[in-house]
Amino acid sequence: MTTIQWKGTAASPGIAIAKALRLEPAAAPPERRAVADPAAETARLGAAVAQAREAIDAIRRSTLERMGEQKAEIFEAHLFLLDDPELIEAAEDKIRDERINAESALHEVAGGIAELLRSMDDELLRERAADVGDVAGRVIRILEGRESGTMSGLSEETILVAEDLTPSDTAQLDLDYVKGFLTEIGSRTSHSAIMARSLELPAIVGAGREAGRIESGTMLVLDAVEGIVLVDPSAEELERYRQRKREYEEKQARLRSFVDRPSASADGHEVELAANIGSVADLAKVLESGADAIGLFRTEFLYMGRSSLPTEEEQFSVYRHVLEKMQGKRVVIRTLDIGGDKELPYLDLPKESNPFLGRRAIRLCLAEEELLRVQLRALLRASAYGRLAIMFPMIAVVQELRDAKRILAEERAKLEQAGIAVSSGIEVGLMIEIPAAALNADALAREADFFSIGTNDLIQYTMAADRMNESVAYLYQPHHPSILRLVEMVIRASERHGRWTGMCGEMAGDPDAIPLLLGLGLHEFSMSASTVLSAREQISRLSRAECAGLARQALELGAQDEVLALVRNYIARSEA
Amino acid sequence: MTTIQWKGTAASPGIAIAKALRLEPAAAPPERRAVADPAAETARLGAAVAQAREAIDAIRRSTLERMGEQKAEIFEAHLFLLDDPELIEAAEDKIRDERINAESALHEVAGGIAELLRSMDDELLRERAADVGDVAGRVIRILEGRESGTMSGLSEETILVAEDLTPSDTAQLDLDYVKGFLTEIGSRTSHSAIMARSLELPAIVGAGREAGRIESGTMLVLDAVEGIVLVDPSAEELERYRQRKREYEEKQARLRSFVDRPSASADGHEVELAANIGSVADLAKVLESGADAIGLFRTEFLYMGRSSLPTEEEQFSVYRHVLEKMQGKRVVIRTLDIGGDKELPYLDLPKESNPFLGRRAIRLCLAEEELLRVQLRALLRASAYGRLAIMFPMIAVVQELRDAKRILAEERAKLEQAGIAVSSGIEVGLMIEIPAAALNADALAREADFFSIGTNDLIQYTMAADRMNESVAYLYQPHHPSILRLVEMVIRASERHGRWTGMCGEMAGDPDAIPLLLGLGLHEFSMSASTVLSAREQISRLSRAECAGLARQALELGAQDEVLALVRNYIARSEA
Repeated sequence: MTTIQWKGTAASPGIAIAKALRLEPAAAPPERRAVADPAAETARLGAAVAQAREAIDAIRRSTLERMGEQKAEIFEAHLFLLDDPELIEAAEDKIRDERINAESALHEVAGGIAELLRSMDDELLRERAADVGDVAGRVIRILEGRESGTMSGLSEETILVAEDLTPSDTAQLDLDYVKGFLTEIGSRTSHSAIMARSLELPAIVGAGREAGRIESGTMLVLDAVEGIVLVDPSAEELERYRQRKREYEEKQARLRSFVDRPSASADGHEVELAANIGSVADLAKVLESGADAIGLFRTEFLYMGRSSLPTEEEQFSVYRHVLEKMQGKRVVIRTLDIGGDKELPYLDLPKESNPFLGRRAIRLCLAEEELLRVQLRALLRASAYGRLAIMFPMIAVVQELRDAKRILAEERAKLEQAGIAVSSGIEVGLMIEIPAAALNADALAREADFFSIGTNDLIQYTMAADRMNESVAYLYQPHHPSILRLVEMVIRASERHGRWTGMCGEMAGDPDAIPLLLGLGLHEFSMSASTVLSAREQISRLSRAECAGLARQALELGAQDEVLALVRNYIARSEA
Repeated sequence: MTTIQWKGTAASPGIAIAKALRLEPAAAPPERRAVADPAAETARLGAAVAQAREAIDAIRRSTLERMGEQKAEIFEAHLFLLDDPELIEAAEDKIRDERINAESALHEVAGGIAELLRSMDDELLRERAADVGDVAGRVIRILEGRESGTMSGLSEETILVAEDLTPSDTAQLDLDYVKGFLTEIGSRTSHSAIMARSLELPAIVGAGREAGRIESGTMLVLDAVEGIVLVDPSAEELERYRQRKREYEEKQARLRSFVDRPSASADGHEVELAANIGSVADLAKVLESGADAIGLFRTEFLYMGRSSLPTEEEQFSVYRHVLEKMQGKRVVIRTLDIGGDKELPYLDLPKESNPFLGRRAIRLCLAEEELLRVQLRALLRASAYGRLAIMFPMIAVVQELRDAKRILAEERAKLEQAGIAVSSGIEVGLMIEIPAAALNADALAREADFFSIGTNDLIQYTMAADRMNESVAYLYQPHHPSILRLVEMVIRASERHGRWTGMCGEMAGDPDAIPLLLGLGLHEFSMSASTVLSAREQISRLSRAECAGLARQALELGAQDEVLALVRNYIARSEA
């Protein structure tokens, strides 16, 4: 029999090898029964709520101990839900008014709330829907006399397989035996995925209905690095994955030792290793990664998946939250980069023949100034709560930077006049992602505090090749000498004017690019939080002086192949 | 009363100021009458044809004298038409078969042929439709006894206003009195427009139905430099245009003296002034312009407006014709640049989200190799008839140039093996229109004989701004320092490897750019034929040494405004 193999979303990295244990799907909805004595029924509900409160508080305490304050907050929120009149009081009312049993009254009320929350535009509110289901489910199970430690009594290593896991399920996993989990539904941003990451428990979510067919006792390999599931692996596959698991775990242990180490090369040259985020949900990973800063907060996700523009207040609270959580570390927030491949239906922008070469990002924001003013006000107000840097995207010419800075100064003046606190230390910089800006970095450096090179777009424009178009994918060449020459120009220009240059494209975290970028003198490397530690480890082993020589050689070459061969040869030699 | 003013297509440049003379529209179609004696009717037709032959031959002789051999060929073709069995014999057959009058028989036959020709994909054949109408119309007017020198007896200066003019009308204009013409229909490429240019007679064509309302005797200003028509101008306007006309004519006389002069700066630095063409029809202007070469032959027009690919034979005959006509002057022929904004419906290429960043030009030709092989074979065969240079468009990386050159070498080997003559002196170069290519010009120069900078695309990609998109038009900045820096890199790289660099974008003919380009050391300037002489005159007055200093200054600036101010100030000072 051949091994079944398929892909899912690696929600929490790692490799697990163990037999499957199926968690039965949630029980059927409780039966709706008429009751003769509603008062007795509300008393039953009250008792179950009290018992649930104790159980959740126990989970909260153990989570606090095992996973820290942030994860424990999930269960504080659950406790608040038990006091929420919209949930419990509404269920009591329903028992009295409709003279029905407590289980079905609570089930119906909770279902209504969850449905309402799921229909909201706000991502955080949608996650609350899962919390309501989790809490109500627990009370209902107590009412039905079904509440038990479903996973107690495990006696061998196990990979849990379930339709989905609630945060409570995840928090209560017996990590002595549970080595990973696999769910049919769910995404990287669900609470159970987030908790799996903080438990460092390999997890693949959203694996689809194939996962539902796995029976308890089946041998599984869960490669939650690559997102691959192997069902009934062969002896060779098992051996290969055991080896891979050992290597992965050794590497992780080595990397963890870098969390509190400085980001510096072997010869003592310090750089900044920062993380890119797209929403508040990404913060936890950044905090765990030991990143020195947030080098790119893409704010467009605040504007997407909704039906109108986010208000100044909504934006302010998000920016403030991120700045506070980063506790004085720099947070580079990029102003709205919409257009191109990212559309906002409610703005009703005209269709363009070549949207990547169209009115996107700062071009749109300067044409529709109020869009930018609202965002800048929110940013200025949030600046009092941390170390903010504001970054403008898609600047091509100096005049655009001047216009954006003028608007920023106007909004600052208005806020200050109104007596609102604004930090005096905000850095103002720009993305370098258009060839004209890289070639004219000297003039831009006179008027900006910093640059961040956006390699994804810079490569696309420098090669004149749409990075989303498969038929010209061969031209997406981060290591092409022309790209390196632009990067070098930008870094030299920023140095001449006492500014710093970062990079926030995918290239910044690429192990084959890091030696060159270090050699060229890049100051800040901003990447996915998941690669920060391996970048820090790599840099700690590199000699800045040697890399500078390497970069000089690379700049003299004529093709990406030649550059890649040079770097890989250097890496192989220095690891030998 | 306010002056009426509108715009049309300036088909032949110049300024005319005179009273309008309306040419009556073509007479109604001849009446179809039954005839009793068809033999007498065919005899009538024969006599009219003989009379027409004499008249056309007279026009041919006078055209030969006044406008040279090339224009006279039009009337040779008309004489051939009178011998064409499809026209006259078919009319005779119709007279006999249908027993109708000669006028209507010929009118119907000619109408059918013209309609057929107009439906053809070939531009030259479509022009023949006008010729058939012209010849048949003359014979019919003779048959009707209406043939007269319609414009004889003019006694004052006149601007002709007509629905359209036939080549015969145009050839017979009495230039002592006719100072210009204005037509409702027609385009820059119609025979009458071409003849007007060789007569140096100001002409505006396709001016629309407003022109039809002008009555004879109305005062007109025809500014066929700007394409503006003024009806009933005020005294001030008249004075202003008289002044403008004097200046224009003085300038033209001065420019004409540059036709046979070398293209050299005041301090003796020689450059090459070349012309861009899109089809054989543009050749006449190139020959008249005194251009040193053709710097860009855009071959995509051979592929457009038809329903299938042009064959190797069709291409060969066009390339050979152009090479022969240029009599040993260099002709740079660019291989197919399709995709982007230029589509070929019959190739059925997939729709792309950003066609300007998609699979266009050499990318498409390397993916669909046979397309390129057919064109290269036609070019190689044509190379024996002149001085051919082959240019590949949209090269981004060295590998693409190598692939294209390998295919060229393979086709050459096959032809040589078959004993077909191929020139050994073909230069092979590439467009520099992608930032990556400009930044990597050194590596490309090792493997190419020449570069031609395509500024239209280079600016678009360097600025990341679609040149067809109005909302980002402010970013189309040819004088931006980033563009000048790329141009400089390319020229320096080509010099280091003993190659030459040309430019074939609009920038090459821009008077505000020419001092900078001369200063940067551009070798070849390729532009619209109509600007070759003014460029030659401008360069003859410039000092290469001074311009080199000017370019160095410009390279240090930070914005297009600053560069433009610098150049315009220099031009003003040197003209003062």
